[in-house]
Amino acid sequence: LKTINTNQPLKKSEFKPLAQALRVNLLQWQFRTSQKDRPVIIVIAGDDRSGRHDTIHTLLEWLDPRFIRVNAYGPSEQQDNNKPFFWRFWRDMPAAGNIGLYMREWTSSSINQYLNEEISEAKLGRRVDYIKRFEKALSDDGALIIKLWLHLSEEAHALRVESVKDTPFFDEKDELAYKNYNHAVSTIERVLEQTNAPHAPWHVINSDDPMQRDIIVGQIIEKQLSHWVEASKPIVPSTPPPSLVNTNILNSIDLNQAISKDDYETKLDQYREELRQLMSQAHLEKRAVVCVFEGVDAAGKGGAIRRLVSALDVGHYRIVPVAKPTEEEYRHHYLWRFWRNMPANGLLTIFDRSWYGRVLVERVEKFAGDHEWQRAYQEINDFEDQMVQHGIIVVKFWLHIDQDEQLQRFKAREKTPHKQHKITEEDYRNRDKWHEYREAIHDMISQTDTKRAPWTLISAQDKKFARIAVFKTLIDRLNSTLSDR
Amino acid sequence: LKTINTNQPLKKSEFKPLAQALRVNLLQWQFRTSQKDRPVIIVIAGDDRSGRHDTIHTLLEWLDPRFIRVNAYGPSEQQDNNKPFFWRFWRDMPAAGNIGLYMREWTSSSINQYLNEEISEAKLGRRVDYIKRFEKALSDDGALIIKLWLHLSEEAHALRVESVKDTPFFDEKDELAYKNYNHAVSTIERVLEQTNAPHAPWHVINSDDPMQRDIIVGQIIEKQLSHWVEASKPIVPSTPPPSLVNTNILNSIDLNQAISKDDYETKLDQYREELRQLMSQAHLEKRAVVCVFEGVDAAGKGGAIRRLVSALDVGHYRIVPVAKPTEEEYRHHYLWRFWRNMPANGLLTIFDRSWYGRVLVERVEKFAGDHEWQRAYQEINDFEDQMVQHGIIVVKFWLHIDQDEQLQRFKAREKTPHKQHKITEEDYRNRDKWHEYREAIHDMISQTDTKRAPWTLISAQDKKFARIAVFKTLIDRLNSTLSDR
Repeated sequence: LKTINTNQPLKKSEFKPLAQALRVNLLQWQFRTSQKDRPVIIVIAGDDRSGRHDTIHTLLEWLDPRFIRVNAYGPSEQQDNNKPFFWRFWRDMPAAGNIGLYMREWTSSSINQYLNEEISEAKLGRRVDYIKRFEKALSDDGALIIKLWLHLSEEAHALRVESVKDTPFFDEKDELAYKNYNHAVSTIERVLEQTNAPHAPWHVINSDDPMQRDIIVGQIIEKQLSHWVEASKPIVPSTPPPSLVNTNILNSIDLNQAISKDDYETKLDQYREELRQLMSQAHLEKRAVVCVFEGVDAAGKGGAIRRLVSALDVGHYRIVPVAKPTEEEYRHHYLWRFWRNMPANGLLTIFDRSWYGRVLVERVEKFAGDHEWQRAYQEINDFEDQMVQHGIIVVKFWLHIDQDEQLQRFKAREKTPHKQHKITEEDYRNRDKWHEYREAIHDMISQTDTKRAPWTLISAQDKKFARIAVFKTLIDRLNSTLSDR
Repeated sequence: LKTINTNQPLKKSEFKPLAQALRVNLLQWQFRTSQKDRPVIIVIAGDDRSGRHDTIHTLLEWLDPRFIRVNAYGPSEQQDNNKPFFWRFWRDMPAAGNIGLYMREWTSSSINQYLNEEISEAKLGRRVDYIKRFEKALSDDGALIIKLWLHLSEEAHALRVESVKDTPFFDEKDELAYKNYNHAVSTIERVLEQTNAPHAPWHVINSDDPMQRDIIVGQIIEKQLSHWVEASKPIVPSTPPPSLVNTNILNSIDLNQAISKDDYETKLDQYREELRQLMSQAHLEKRAVVCVFEGVDAAGKGGAIRRLVSALDVGHYRIVPVAKPTEEEYRHHYLWRFWRNMPANGLLTIFDRSWYGRVLVERVEKFAGDHEWQRAYQEINDFEDQMVQHGIIVVKFWLHIDQDEQLQRFKAREKTPHKQHKITEEDYRNRDKWHEYREAIHDMISQTDTKRAPWTLISAQDKKFARIAVFKTLIDRLNSTLSDR
C-alpha cells in the first residue's frame, strides 16, 4: 500500500503548533459545513485498529463533538442479518449540515469478513459493486465523502500486535490481517483500488507514527471540507432515458377487463385464505415482502390495499403512506426514508406511493432537476436489487384507469360526504398534465421493470377486477418464491 | 367484569346498516382528527385474543388504514430488556393527527406477564403506577386515549379455547386466563379498576357475539373521536411549585473554587484512566449511563463534554445536542425525543441540554404554558425514575458561572474567530432575563433533585475546576453503583 506520508516521525514540539492551527481551521470549516444542505461522511478505516480509535479521539478533540456522530459497527451489527447489509449505514446517515464519522463501515467490514472467511470471493465482489454505487448515489446527491485508510508497515504492525496481545483490547476476529500480513495487504490493495473513485477517493496514510498520522488526517479533512464548502453543488451529468418508442407501454393495458360481483366475492374469499396461508409461511421462513402501490390518482390504491390487508395478521404488516417529505427527510438523500421503512425478515411493508415519486411527480412538477430524476432509475434498480439479494420479495403494482374514468371518480368523490376531503384543486391540475405523466410512467416502467422486481400493470377501470388481480399477483409471486412450493 | 353491552346477539341483517352508517361517520372523524395537533391512542385489549384481531381488522376496514398504525407487541418485544419497559410504546407513539392502534400494550402485557408468573405482585403494582402516570402525561398533553377491553364470558371462553386448541393459532403463553378463569378475571378486574381514570377510562365490552362487539367498539370510538375533535384543548390545572424560599439554591455554589494548571493535568490524566476502566466495566455489566449537562450559557458545557468523551471508547457513547424541536418532534409529547435517544444497556448517552428545557427556556420564554411547565416536574421525575428502575445510572450536572464571568466570555468569544458563531444577539437577550432564569433554575433543582437522580451543582467560574468536578462526580457515581465495588 502506497501511503501519502513519509516515515519521518514528528516531534512533539512540531506537533503542537500544527495541531493548534488545524483545530482553529477545522472548527471554522465545521461551522460552515453546518450551514450546507448536504452532509459529510468521513470513513476512518484501516489495518491499524487502535490507530482508528486514537484518530477519531483526536478528531473529536479538534472538532466540536456535539455535531458529529460516530457510527461504529461491531461484529454483531455486521452479522445482524435481519435487514440488508447497507440498511444500517443508511439508517445512520447524517442529515444535511452534519458530519458522520464511520468506523468498521461498509468497506472495511467487507474486507474483514472476507479475510475471516465469513463471505466468499464472489460475495466480496458483489459488495464492491454495491459500495461503488452507494457512494456514487450519495456523492451525486451532493454529500462529501472522505475516506481514510490508516496503514501500518509490517514491522510496526508486528510491534502493535505484540503490545496488545495480553490485554483485553486484543480481539483476533476484529483485527485485520493478523494471520497473513501479505495476503491481507494484497486484498486491501485490491478492494481499495476497486472502490477508489473521483468522488470518493481513498487516502492511505502511514500510521506508524501516530502524531504524523493525525496531522495528515486533519489536513486532508481540512482541505476536503474547504473545497466542498466553497464549491457550489455540482451538476452531475446523467444519461436521459432512451427516447420514447412509438407505443406507450400503458397502451398495452386492456382497460375493458372486468369481473362479475359473484365471481369477485367467491374469488376474494378464496384468495384471502390462500394469501393468509402464504403470508404465514413467509413469516415462518423469515422472508420479508415489499409491496409498492403506484397508479393514476383515483385508481383505487387505497381500496385495493384495504382488501389486501384484511387477509393479514395485524402484527405482520405495516402500511407506509408516502406524501411529501418531512423536514427531516428532506435533509437526507431521497432514498433514505424508504431504507428506514424496510421490513425486517418475516414482515410485510406496503408502500402507498413510493420512491417512484422521484421519477413521476418530482419529474413532472420539476421538484427534481433533470439530472436528478434521470439518474434515479439506476439508483432505484440498485435499491431494489439489494432488497432482492437480501431475500426480500418485491412486488410492484401500477393501477391504471383512463382520463374519463378518472373524471367520473373525481365527480363521484365530490358528492360523497366522507370522500370529499380526498379531492382537491391539485387533483384537477394534475389531470392537465396527463400526457406528461403518461410519458413519465412509460419511462419509469421501461427503465425499472427488472426481472428481479418486475412491474405488474393492472387495469383498475373495474375496481373489483383490480383488487382480484392484486391478490392473484401477490399469491403467484409467493408461490413461486417461497421454498417448498 | 361488567360489560356495557347486552348478551342479545345481533343479526346479520341488523349489522349491515349499522356498520355502513358507522363507517361513513368514522371516516369523517378520522379526517377531522388528521387536522388536530395531537394524536389518538386506541388500545384494543382483552381476554379474547382472536376477538382483538378481528376487531382491529374491522376497524381497519371501516377507517382508512393508511393513516393508522397498528402496534402489536409480541412476547419477544415484551421481554426485550435492553431498554425500559415503556420505551417501545413511546417509540411508536403516533404523531399529531395520527391514530395509533395498540395491541398487547402496557396494561394487557403487564397483566399477561403477571398471570404467567413472569413478574411479581410488587412489580405489577409498580407497573400500574407507571401506567397511570404515562396515560396522564399523554392526556394532559392533549392526546385522546380510548381503551377497550374485549371480554368473554366463561362459557364463550371455554368454547373459544376449544375451537383453536389444535390449530397453529393456539398459544398457551399468549392467551390470558387459560388456566384459571376466575383468578384471571379477578386480576383483570383489579388492574382495570386501578388504571381507570377520567382521562383514560376503560370500556369493557362483551365479546361473545362478534358482530355486536364490533358495532359497540365502533360506536365508542365514534363518540370519543367526535367529542375530542370538537372540544378545544383542555387546560389541565396543575399545582405551581411552592413559592421560593428566601435563599436561591444557586447561592450555595461557591464560585471561588479553582484548581492549578499542574494539579488539573495530573488529575485529568488520573481520572481519565479511572473513568475508562469504570465505563468498560459498566459496558461489561450492561449498565447504561445517562449524563445530563445543563448550565448557564457559556458555562463551558461543550468543553467539559469534550474532555469527558476523550476517556471513552468511541463506540460506547453518543452525544445528543438538544436544540429547538424539529417538525417531527414538535408533533409529539415533549418527552418523546428523549425517550427515543435512550441508551441501550451498556452504553452512555450524553445530553447537551435536555428535557429540562421544558422548565427553563420554555418556561421563561413562555413557549410552554404555566400548566405545562408546572406539571413537567412530576413528569420528569417519573421519566428519570423509570430509567433508574431499569438500571440506568442518571447523572445530572448544572454548570454555573456569574453574570460578570458570562459577559467576559461572550466578549472573548466575539474576538476568537472560530468561536464567533457561538455568540448571537439572542445570548445577550437571554442575559436580560438572568433573574427569571435564576428563579426557574432554583425551582427546577428543588423539584427534581431526587435521591435516585440527584443534581450536582458545579462552579464553572474556573473551567478546569469544573471539568475535574464532572469527572469526579461521574467516577464516584459509577464506583458506588457498579456491582463489585
